[in-house]
Amino acid sequence: MNRKDRYTVAVLGATGAVGRAMLSTLERRNFPVGELRLLASPKSAGQMLEFRGQKIAVRAVEESDFEEVDIALFSAGASASQMYAPLAVTKGCVVVDNSSAFRMDPQVPLVVPEVNPRAVLDHKGIIANPNCSTIQLVVALNPLAQFGIEHVSVTTYQAVSGMGQKGIDALQRETANFGKGTTLFPVADGEVHYPMAFNVLPQCDVFLENGYTKEEMKLVHESRKILGQPKLHVSPTAVRVPVVYGHSEVVSVRFAERVSAQQVRTRLQEALGVVVVDDPLHALYPHPKMAEGTGDTYVGRIRQDLVDNQTVWMFVVADNLLKGAAWNAVQIAELLVDQAGN
Amino acid sequence: MNRKDRYTVAVLGATGAVGRAMLSTLERRNFPVGELRLLASPKSAGQMLEFRGQKIAVRAVEESDFEEVDIALFSAGASASQMYAPLAVTKGCVVVDNSSAFRMDPQVPLVVPEVNPRAVLDHKGIIANPNCSTIQLVVALNPLAQFGIEHVSVTTYQAVSGMGQKGIDALQRETANFGKGTTLFPVADGEVHYPMAFNVLPQCDVFLENGYTKEEMKLVHESRKILGQPKLHVSPTAVRVPVVYGHSEVVSVRFAERVSAQQVRTRLQEALGVVVVDDPLHALYPHPKMAEGTGDTYVGRIRQDLVDNQTVWMFVVADNLLKGAAWNAVQIAELLVDQAGN
Repeated sequence: MNRKDRYTVAVLGATGAVGRAMLSTLERRNFPVGELRLLASPKSAGQMLEFRGQKIAVRAVEESDFEEVDIALFSAGASASQMYAPLAVTKGCVVVDNSSAFRMDPQVPLVVPEVNPRAVLDHKGIIANPNCSTIQLVVALNPLAQFGIEHVSVTTYQAVSGMGQKGIDALQRETANFGKGTTLFPVADGEVHYPMAFNVLPQCDVFLENGYTKEEMKLVHESRKILGQPKLHVSPTAVRVPVVYGHSEVVSVRFAERVSAQQVRTRLQEALGVVVVDDPLHALYPHPKMAEGTGDTYVGRIRQDLVDNQTVWMFVVADNLLKGAAWNAVQIAELLVDQAGN
Repeated sequence: MNRKDRYTVAVLGATGAVGRAMLSTLERRNFPVGELRLLASPKSAGQMLEFRGQKIAVRAVEESDFEEVDIALFSAGASASQMYAPLAVTKGCVVVDNSSAFRMDPQVPLVVPEVNPRAVLDHKGIIANPNCSTIQLVVALNPLAQFGIEHVSVTTYQAVSGMGQKGIDALQRETANFGKGTTLFPVADGEVHYPMAFNVLPQCDVFLENGYTKEEMKLVHESRKILGQPKLHVSPTAVRVPVVYGHSEVVSVRFAERVSAQQVRTRLQEALGVVVVDDPLHALYPHPKMAEGTGDTYVGRIRQDLVDNQTVWMFVVADNLLKGAAWNAVQIAELLVDQAGN
């Protein structure tokens, strides 16, 4: 990608929950956008979205839409990425892909800018944006890597917006109809429907043969790749809660040596992209409403295990549509701009 | 207590969320109630509650109300228990106390009937009912004790009814007013208010100097006492979620030996008070709406850790007002009846 003052940017999946967050993030972070092309499936084409005070029409994506595009942000699902990302690359475009399509491809960097920014240098046209619950986890873990991370357990409280706009709509509809029993939440693949309003469901995405969900295995495989610890012991449990925006995670980290809560707190206070909110005696700790609308990862409830002085527990919260998706993707685009023409 | 056909029962705190659940449980379990005395604080006196189709007036509690009472079920908070339980005992009444007042008193049995029923034999007039989140945990752990339990981690998703009727009312009010910002949830002591609707708060009850909440330390100390493992390594994190009825827990158990998920499943399928719902490939797993209104503890998502073959993970759900409080208290009263006059 050549250095320019302004870049031609395409957003594929512009009308979705993450796509809209991409537009607002490009605006909020003052990304040097020249031309902006908004692309989606034919059924969303024609919608008007606002960017910097201007209305832009969403177009049904075609191969030619990627001509002369510098950076394309993809968030239209894995099959759209599989179809259009290679085409966009042949036209000279760099694709930042929010789907799971290429994340575990050894040829594709999987990037969280606070953790492994230099990985973008190795791209061959596609850079993968990690899964939402993984991003906030590794932002909180990476500053602690110097202590030697041996085992991570992560138990999640995931917002329905992780399923996109349809998750948001379904929870709102179900809450409004609560007690009337008329609507149920489409769990994972949309074929299974359970109550979600005022309920908790230990399923995010579909189950695999090993008894874990896809979401849980993403937490394992993606964390290992981003942190560069291919054998890291990760114990994941992913649970959906009736929250609209913001994933929370209860995380334990077992270190190779004795580490105090204060050592962890100090490292996290110095870390990029982390906000430590940790004064429980004054009722200060992170929660989804605190993280909502921000690009930061909030960490609190930092405390040593009651028995094992090599283990520290913490509570990690981020806005899953922003740091967990759109914000991280735009940060990757900024890394591309920083290295353009170098 | 002498053996009788029918027993005189008093319920202190009858108008609260747990008190009402005690009445319905006495009825559902067909407890041999003769006379029933409904007691509460002066401000709740005069309310009429229904039992077996009859309206009974709630009286402001007085010392004389415990005369000729066989069994008193207390759920009016720790200070009411501290004041009235010793008085009731001097009148020959056996008190089953749902508050935290006497739970850790070495003279007082702390009983979950599926786990340590014989402990009731040692009572000196007071038997303590454990904390809600502890009860369902030990019901699921005890059947696994034969494998040698070395470490338990428990991360909770706790319903607002754990705070009593005021928690239920506050979540309902806040959900109805959502987005208008007019009401906030009274966390723990009622002095701190945070959003609870569509949110998650990593605080149940007040914080202690060690950075853990009272609720978390109850999970440690009460589990040790009930299971008879005074040094058991328990790692607790208690989190409130916008659920009305039903606590969920993500539990890991590290055993002294290699144990498979199937061994755990088999033991739990044979266990008293446990319902195993564990067929994830057919989307079958427990959730609060499944447990609501029942006296059972539901367990699913039983799976071995991905790396450590001595650790098994599971998802444990129960109705916190029933098995977590009223149901367990009535089960204790039944144990008293079983041993009466022996």
